Amino acid sequence: MDRRSFLKTSALGGASAAAASTLAAPMYAQGKRTLTMVCSWPRGLAGVWEAVERFVDSVQTMSDGQLTIEARAAGELVGGLEVFDAVTSGQADIYHSAEYYFTGQHPAMAFFTTSPFGMTAPEMMVWYYGMGGQKLHRDLGEIFGLRANIGGQTGAQGGGWFRKEITSVSDFQGLKLRMPGLGGEVVGKLGASVQVMPAGDIYQALSSGALDGTEWVGPWSDERLGLQEVCDYFYPAGFHEPGSALSVNTNLEVFQSLTPAQQRIIDNAAAECNQFDYALFLANNGPALQRLISGGTQIKQFPDDVWEALGRASKEVLDQYMDDDLFVEIRTSVEESMKATSAWMGQSDTFYSTQRNRVLEKMEG
Amino acid sequence: MDRRSFLKTSALGGASAAAASTLAAPMYAQGKRTLTMVCSWPRGLAGVWEAVERFVDSVQTMSDGQLTIEARAAGELVGGLEVFDAVTSGQADIYHSAEYYFTGQHPAMAFFTTSPFGMTAPEMMVWYYGMGGQKLHRDLGEIFGLRANIGGQTGAQGGGWFRKEITSVSDFQGLKLRMPGLGGEVVGKLGASVQVMPAGDIYQALSSGALDGTEWVGPWSDERLGLQEVCDYFYPAGFHEPGSALSVNTNLEVFQSLTPAQQRIIDNAAAECNQFDYALFLANNGPALQRLISGGTQIKQFPDDVWEALGRASKEVLDQYMDDDLFVEIRTSVEESMKATSAWMGQSDTFYSTQRNRVLEKMEG
Repeated sequence: MDRRSFLKTSALGGASAAAASTLAAPMYAQGKRTLTMVCSWPRGLAGVWEAVERFVDSVQTMSDGQLTIEARAAGELVGGLEVFDAVTSGQADIYHSAEYYFTGQHPAMAFFTTSPFGMTAPEMMVWYYGMGGQKLHRDLGEIFGLRANIGGQTGAQGGGWFRKEITSVSDFQGLKLRMPGLGGEVVGKLGASVQVMPAGDIYQALSSGALDGTEWVGPWSDERLGLQEVCDYFYPAGFHEPGSALSVNTNLEVFQSLTPAQQRIIDNAAAECNQFDYALFLANNGPALQRLISGGTQIKQFPDDVWEALGRASKEVLDQYMDDDLFVEIRTSVEESMKATSAWMGQSDTFYSTQRNRVLEKMEG
Repeated sequence: MDRRSFLKTSALGGASAAAASTLAAPMYAQGKRTLTMVCSWPRGLAGVWEAVERFVDSVQTMSDGQLTIEARAAGELVGGLEVFDAVTSGQADIYHSAEYYFTGQHPAMAFFTTSPFGMTAPEMMVWYYGMGGQKLHRDLGEIFGLRANIGGQTGAQGGGWFRKEITSVSDFQGLKLRMPGLGGEVVGKLGASVQVMPAGDIYQALSSGALDGTEWVGPWSDERLGLQEVCDYFYPAGFHEPGSALSVNTNLEVFQSLTPAQQRIIDNAAAECNQFDYALFLANNGPALQRLISGGTQIKQFPDDVWEALGRASKEVLDQYMDDDLFVEIRTSVEESMKATSAWMGQSDTFYSTQRNRVLEKMEG
């Protein structure tokens, strides 16, 4: 899409882009407004597009129709990875994306999606809403002229699909593996030949042997791609995305031009979406896992020494960025929160659910 | 408080009680409104009163001041356990409570707080927002003239505090244990002498030997009661409240008299509070557990055979209500959701976090 048609469409979408660029210290705008939201996702992407639609509907309904959000899928106004530039420059008003796409802007952006050996989704909720994560996200966002919110959550992503079983660290040597981002850097350190390709190419690449394995999202999403048809082995536990949050970031000038009620509606709608989306993914992953098992997929876990090698390599990858003070501050906050939360959860939730599952199984058996 | 002073105070609080009782098929009320919320909690109760305040503030801010909620603590208008009657009768507009206090109204109310051997907080989110739990809650609420929402979450509650270590099922024989609700019925089946007493009496009863043990909430709340001063042993994992949700239920006629925007604001504010409160409890439980350990509290877990006996007794307690069709429907929904979700989470989140914690500890050591 060229710039001329972009501007035309944006003008049709509302006065918000103009408002952001012309008002130095904006007063609250009066009357109905339409904001343009650019998304990193194709329309209909499982579990993600539902979060987009719910956010849009929540904001419109709670604002009594005063605030309309027009969601544009990847490629409709700008490309999926161009949404950060579009919103920070004022071309669009809000983006729905995942912050780890923008580690080129700042490496600490990764922590607001997920990081290798990082937090599970519940731990992320605790950090973000209870231990200062949201404030750090907003501080980082402000540097780029953004009002930051998380507003979606996939839960723990699967370890991936493999054509052959992984039984030792040496199996990663030369393995043609699709894994983007920091996770890809980590398996690269174990000798994997890391490939990057869009979703639409994965099935064929596994089928032809151009790939030996891939990560995607989890049982629900992976089943839709048909990965169970081209790989025998699924590893439910992965190290690379233990709980991935989506972000709903608003141009800061646009946000400040909204009424206090509308500002709170955007913040609340995003937070509500985060919990909703977590529930949606997990509600679908459970039954999908059962279907995969019934269909013959072999469920495996990486052995202990593989976890240890991945842990060491993850630390090496994160340690590369420790010359940046803000990265250090955010990483320290993540790690301290995770340690305190997991110490409690490990002895309460995790111990409980392990005992519960054991006892219920025994009583059924 | 007598009825005369109740009515006087309620009239000061706004016109909502009158609106609820006089409008058969209400149109949307115009202008500013004040709703009275009666709470089962004392003002300031850790982790719970923050949820009350956040809900009140969210609704007021998002509605641009059109909807004000006046929160009254237990005893200010009605007693803590009288809030259900107050709201269903139209004397008050909203209650902030926990549904398991109202199992006398319907035994299935328990499932919308927690149940023995039931769901953890993340599993509850999945069931409630992703697998039909919310619809069942609203269906049950409608029978009593309520618009039901959950709007708070303590996370997994601790197994409790004991003056002597629990090493076998026989230790429950004659044990003087404070544990309310279904959990109390379960330990009663193991021979415990179940006591009921308010929070303010627990410390003294443990100190004098009138009690051998008690459950309360979790490290954060328990530490505030000073239980670590009168018991040597804390059991972080409990069977009786694996993830307790709070409820924010509105009189249905009052709810229907609100504008669609205000209705959505109430629903959304409650859901946002649920996630916020979960984060708040867990953010405080982690550091509190560390302080308890530093202070000399012995952290223990019930042995396997105790878990098995508690599991069998929990099933017996729940089976008592299986002559009620709605109870059967809701219990079946809970158990199917829990099974599917925990099958996925057990192999993803739980397996991951166990490996992560092991590896990180090894790398630090």
